[in-house]
Amino acid sequence: MRVVDLIIKKREGNSLTPDEIAFLVKGFSNGEIPDYQTAAFLMAVYFQGMNAEELSSFTEAMINSGEVYDLSGIPLPKVDKHSTGGVGDKTSLVLASAVAACGVVVPMVSGRALGHTGGTLDKLESIPGYRTTLDATEFRRQLEEIGVAIIGQSERFVPADKKLYALRDLTGTVESIPLIAASIMSKKIAAGTESLVMDVKTGNGAFMNDFERARELAKTLVEIGDNMGRQTIALITDMNQPLGFAVGNSLEVIECINTMKGDAPEDLLELTVELGAHMLVLGKITDDMAEARKQITDAIMNGKALEKFRQLIEYQNGNPRVVDDVSLLGVSNQVEPFVAEKSGYISHIDTLKIGIASMTLGAGRTRIDEPITYDVGLRFRKKLSDYVEKGEPICEIYYHNVDELSEAKNLLSQAISISDEKIKPPVLIKATIDKEGTHIIDNNG
Amino acid sequence: MRVVDLIIKKREGNSLTPDEIAFLVKGFSNGEIPDYQTAAFLMAVYFQGMNAEELSSFTEAMINSGEVYDLSGIPLPKVDKHSTGGVGDKTSLVLASAVAACGVVVPMVSGRALGHTGGTLDKLESIPGYRTTLDATEFRRQLEEIGVAIIGQSERFVPADKKLYALRDLTGTVESIPLIAASIMSKKIAAGTESLVMDVKTGNGAFMNDFERARELAKTLVEIGDNMGRQTIALITDMNQPLGFAVGNSLEVIECINTMKGDAPEDLLELTVELGAHMLVLGKITDDMAEARKQITDAIMNGKALEKFRQLIEYQNGNPRVVDDVSLLGVSNQVEPFVAEKSGYISHIDTLKIGIASMTLGAGRTRIDEPITYDVGLRFRKKLSDYVEKGEPICEIYYHNVDELSEAKNLLSQAISISDEKIKPPVLIKATIDKEGTHIIDNNG
Repeated sequence: MRVVDLIIKKREGNSLTPDEIAFLVKGFSNGEIPDYQTAAFLMAVYFQGMNAEELSSFTEAMINSGEVYDLSGIPLPKVDKHSTGGVGDKTSLVLASAVAACGVVVPMVSGRALGHTGGTLDKLESIPGYRTTLDATEFRRQLEEIGVAIIGQSERFVPADKKLYALRDLTGTVESIPLIAASIMSKKIAAGTESLVMDVKTGNGAFMNDFERARELAKTLVEIGDNMGRQTIALITDMNQPLGFAVGNSLEVIECINTMKGDAPEDLLELTVELGAHMLVLGKITDDMAEARKQITDAIMNGKALEKFRQLIEYQNGNPRVVDDVSLLGVSNQVEPFVAEKSGYISHIDTLKIGIASMTLGAGRTRIDEPITYDVGLRFRKKLSDYVEKGEPICEIYYHNVDELSEAKNLLSQAISISDEKIKPPVLIKATIDKEGTHIIDNNG
Repeated sequence: MRVVDLIIKKREGNSLTPDEIAFLVKGFSNGEIPDYQTAAFLMAVYFQGMNAEELSSFTEAMINSGEVYDLSGIPLPKVDKHSTGGVGDKTSLVLASAVAACGVVVPMVSGRALGHTGGTLDKLESIPGYRTTLDATEFRRQLEEIGVAIIGQSERFVPADKKLYALRDLTGTVESIPLIAASIMSKKIAAGTESLVMDVKTGNGAFMNDFERARELAKTLVEIGDNMGRQTIALITDMNQPLGFAVGNSLEVIECINTMKGDAPEDLLELTVELGAHMLVLGKITDDMAEARKQITDAIMNGKALEKFRQLIEYQNGNPRVVDDVSLLGVSNQVEPFVAEKSGYISHIDTLKIGIASMTLGAGRTRIDEPITYDVGLRFRKKLSDYVEKGEPICEIYYHNVDELSEAKNLLSQAISISDEKIKPPVLIKATIDKEGTHIIDNNG
C-alpha cells in the first residue's frame, strides 16, 4: 500500500477500504506517514468527504490508536452527552447529575474552553480542589460507586485524534463534517459509553452557524454511532444567545447549583430536561419521553440531582460545601453593570461577540495552554425579546482589569441590539435526529 | 499574513493576491512554511484551481526563487519549444538545429527520461562527451556564438519548482493543470526566452490521455505566457504511437541525424516543420506560415540544420564526428526482431506500454537518480494502419539482458494489435491554440 495512491484514491472521490483506512490512521498516528501526506489526505477528505463505512473504519482506527475504557462490567446503562460548544452552555453539570440520579451511568469525557466557547472542565475546576484527571481505574470505580464522572481526556486517549486535530488546525481542514464527526465520536466511544445524545448547536454563537450544516453534522454523528453499535440521538439547539444568564466559570457553576435548588433559567431547564429524557430512554429506564421528562424534572427539583452533584465534586477532590454555600466559589468583587443605551426590546445578540467579551475578561483562552481566570465573566438580566429601559442593566460584568473591562463593554455594545419592535424569541430545540430521520421542530430564529 | 488563512481562502475558492502568492511561494521555497501546510495548499489548488492573475503571480514567484538567465542583450529573437513528453519524441534535436539555422536563437532547457517518456538530455548524453551542464555565462556565450544550446536545469534554477514538484509527487497533487502549467512556464521563462511554442501531447502515450485535458493545459500555458509578456502558441499533437521509428537514446539520435540528411520519418518531419514554422513566425523571421514552413524544411533538407547540430555538439563537448559516422553512437549488437503473430493491419498501439518496454530494456528510468543504458531500445518498421505479414518484423529490439528482452517482448505483444480492417491513421497535429482561441484540426484518433 502506497500512501500517495490512497491520497489519490480519495482525491478522485473513491471509497477507501477498512484496511486502507486503518493503515492510514496507524501511520498518521505513529509518525510513519509524514505530516505532509496526512495534510494532503485531510484536504482531499475536506473536498470529497467519507461515506458511512469509511467513517466507521476511520473512527474505529482512531479509537484503536490509544487507551480504551471498558465499562462493560458495570451492570447499569451507560449514556453520555456531547455538545458541539457554545456560550454559557453549562448543561453538562446539571444534566450529568440529574441523569445519574435517575439511574443511568454517565461516563463523561469533556473539553476545555477555546476561543469564544466555554469548556466543562474549566467550569468544574473553578470549584476549589476539583481534579479532572482520573486514570482508567479511578474513572471506572467512581462510575460504579456514584454513576457519574466528568473528566478530561488522558494523554493516552485517542492520540490519533490529538495529532490529526493539531494538523487540521494548521492546514485549514478543521471545517470538515466527517472529520469533526469522527473526532467527536472516537473520544466518546473510547470512553466506554453504550449510547449517546448529541447537542449540536446552531446560530451565531455556534461553530455551525448554518442550520443545514448543523443538520449534516448531526446526521453524520448519528450514522457513525449507529454503525458502531452505539445508538445515538442528536438535537439541534439554538445558540443565538447565551444559554441561561451566566457566562464565565464560577458564575456558571453557581447558576447550575441554583438550578438544582429550584431557581432555574427557563432555557437551561428546558434543554437539560429534553437531553436528559433522551438519555433515560436510551438507557431504557423508560420508553416514554413524557415519563422520562418528568423523572429528570423531578430529580432537578427534589434535590436528588444536587445531591449527586455534591457526590461528584467530593469524589473528584473538590470542596463539596460549594453546593451549600456558593460564596465559596470565587466571584470577582469588581463588578460593573452594562446598561441599555435606549429603551426597547432586545432584538439581536451576537453570541460570538459575547463569548469573545467573556474570553477578553479572562474567562476563556485563545490557545489551549493559556491560563483561565475563574471568577470573571458576565451575568445577564435579559434575554432575546425582553424589554429593557434606557439605563437599566442588561448584564453585570465581573472583571479584574480595567482595559479588559473597557474592551468587553465595547464588544457588548456591538453585540446587543435594541429595537422598538418586540421580536419572537428563538425556538430552543429546533430538531431531533435519529436513525429514522429528522424531526424538525423549528429551523428559524 | 497567516498561512492557514491563505489555505482556507484558496480552499473556499477565492483568489489570492499577488502579495499573498509571493509570500506563500517564498515560504515554501525557503522552508519557512512547513511542508504539511504546502501540501494542504497544493491539494486545495488541485480542487479549486487558480485564475489567470494568480497563475502569473505564482509563476513569477517561482521564477524569482532562483537564478534567472538574462538574454536580453542578444540582438536576435529568442524562441524556445517545450513538449509535455512522449515516446520516441526526439523533435527537439532536429527542431532546435533547424530553427537556429534559420536565424532564431533557441535557449533550450530540457529534461530527463522519467517513467515511460524519454528525455532530451539523456538522448544528447548518448553522444560521447556531450555535456548538458553549462553555467549562465557559458549558456549565454554559446547562444551568442551559434544561436542554440540544449542544457539541463541548474540546481539554482527555479528551486521552488523542484521543491514543490517533489512534494506534489508524494501528496497526489501532480495532476493539477495550473500547477503543471506554472511548473513548465517558470522554467522556460527563467531560461530567458522571449516567446514559446508548446507541444502538448495527447493520446495513450501522453500524460494527458484526454484531448479536453490537453486543451485545458494548452490554454493555460498560452494564458500564462501572454500574461507574462512571452507570446505562446500551443499545438496539441498525437501520441497514440511513437513519433518516428526509433525509441531509445542512441537510436533516436541516429534517427535525428538521418532526418537532417534527408531520410526523415514522415511524422517527425511534419511535426518539426510545424513547430519550427511557428517559432520562426514568433521570432518575426516572417509572418507567413507557408514561407516559414518552407524555410524550416529547406534547413533540414539542405544540410544547414545538420551543420548547426554538429556545432551544438562541438560547443557542448560532444564528439561532432557522430554526425558523419553514426556508428560512433553505440547501439547494442544484441538485436532480436519482434514479429507479427498474424497478417493484417496495425490497428492499435498502446504507446504507454511501448515506453515501458523501452524503459525495461534500460533506455529509461523509474526514479530520477537511476542510470540509463544508451544503446538499447526499439526500432519500428511499421506505423499505425500499416500492413504486416505474419512473421514479418514489426520492430527490432536492442537489448543487453535476456530477462529484460523477454519482459519487453511480453509488453510489445500486449501493446500492439493487428486487425483485418485497415484503420485510418491518426491525425498528427490536432489543434493549434493561441491567445485568440483554439483552431481544432482534428481531435479524434
